[in-house]
Amino acid sequence: MKIELENIRPMDIEKRSFEIITEELGEKNKSLVPGTELIVKRCIHTSADFDYADNLWFSDGAVEKAEQALRDGACIVTDTKMAWSGINKRTLNRLGGEAFCFISDEDVAEEARERGITRAAVSMEKAAKLDRKLIFAIGNAPTALIRLYELIQDGTLRPELIIGAPVGFVNVVQSKELIMQTDVPQIVARGRKGGSNIAACICNALLYQISSRRD
Amino acid sequence: MKIELENIRPMDIEKRSFEIITEELGEKNKSLVPGTELIVKRCIHTSADFDYADNLWFSDGAVEKAEQALRDGACIVTDTKMAWSGINKRTLNRLGGEAFCFISDEDVAEEARERGITRAAVSMEKAAKLDRKLIFAIGNAPTALIRLYELIQDGTLRPELIIGAPVGFVNVVQSKELIMQTDVPQIVARGRKGGSNIAACICNALLYQISSRRD
Repeated sequence: MKIELENIRPMDIEKRSFEIITEELGEKNKSLVPGTELIVKRCIHTSADFDYADNLWFSDGAVEKAEQALRDGACIVTDTKMAWSGINKRTLNRLGGEAFCFISDEDVAEEARERGITRAAVSMEKAAKLDRKLIFAIGNAPTALIRLYELIQDGTLRPELIIGAPVGFVNVVQSKELIMQTDVPQIVARGRKGGSNIAACICNALLYQISSRRD
Repeated sequence: MKIELENIRPMDIEKRSFEIITEELGEKNKSLVPGTELIVKRCIHTSADFDYADNLWFSDGAVEKAEQALRDGACIVTDTKMAWSGINKRTLNRLGGEAFCFISDEDVAEEARERGITRAAVSMEKAAKLDRKLIFAIGNAPTALIRLYELIQDGTLRPELIIGAPVGFVNVVQSKELIMQTDVPQIVARGRKGGSNIAACICNALLYQISSRRD
């Protein structure tokens, strides 16, 4: 069997991918909320999963608020090293922000053991103590999202944005529904799907939108 | 709306998730090839996407060969830092292996610019020079997989296993079909889907299977 490769320059691959996604969204009669298109398309680009055209929920003005926070130097906190490593930190740093992930810290592990809760939950508490504007990008642990909900409810935390994209089967759907009950700006991948790749890609989509407007 | 959380200990979440996956595979009448079950289920666990019950292709004896290579101290090469950071390096190191990713190396970037090819492709050439048993876990770049195909065809490279899970829309399907034409042991996520998370999770599934047999 002869396999035909598309002849394309490295720099054009992403552009071509987005064209294909746009075409196929049209064929599927999916219309996206204005202002959210690049984020939804980047999630599809990252996963090849068109479910994200239906799954992603944006609270009112979430994109504008998140972009403003990033322009003001907001930091991004993730629940996994994978999400952390997927974030374009060069672009984030240029805006004055940093990316943090405390999941592997020894003090977090120890406290989680003592209290019988997940490291992810403890790592959120540690992040909540940062004296910075904070965006939380959660791609794995529903327990992280649930802890954020509790910290918001008790007034300890007021994040600029929560990206709620844990993936899986136990308390994942519920953790997202809890966050959706708050009035915190949020982008949530409803249902079971999500992932560290999705959490990181939503961060990058926001960062690239800011960069492209500056160019 | 009252949201009911499942009351479960942190240590039991993964077990419960796998039970749900097994139940739902049964309801969907999906039967998995013996010996591949834990890998397929872990991919579903990582993505909440049951498409992986159909997408994953295993060459003959791929799992056994990969496990033997890892027990012999094989190293894992990834095409992204995200995949690298998702691999359980503690377990890998215990077996004598290491994980490598050269995508961000300055010499790789420079050579890619000069030759007008992707950094991913150049990073595969750099990895092919390692004098170690090698497993390639490709979760992003079809150009990495295509370069591996070429290196195998010209006799430069003979990997222990290729995990072919790039994701996306341009040359992704073709790159996987190329690898499937070789006789190299392989686990391929056919079609457009895949990702750094899937590449890492297949590595971890193999590592955990080896560890659990040793316990």
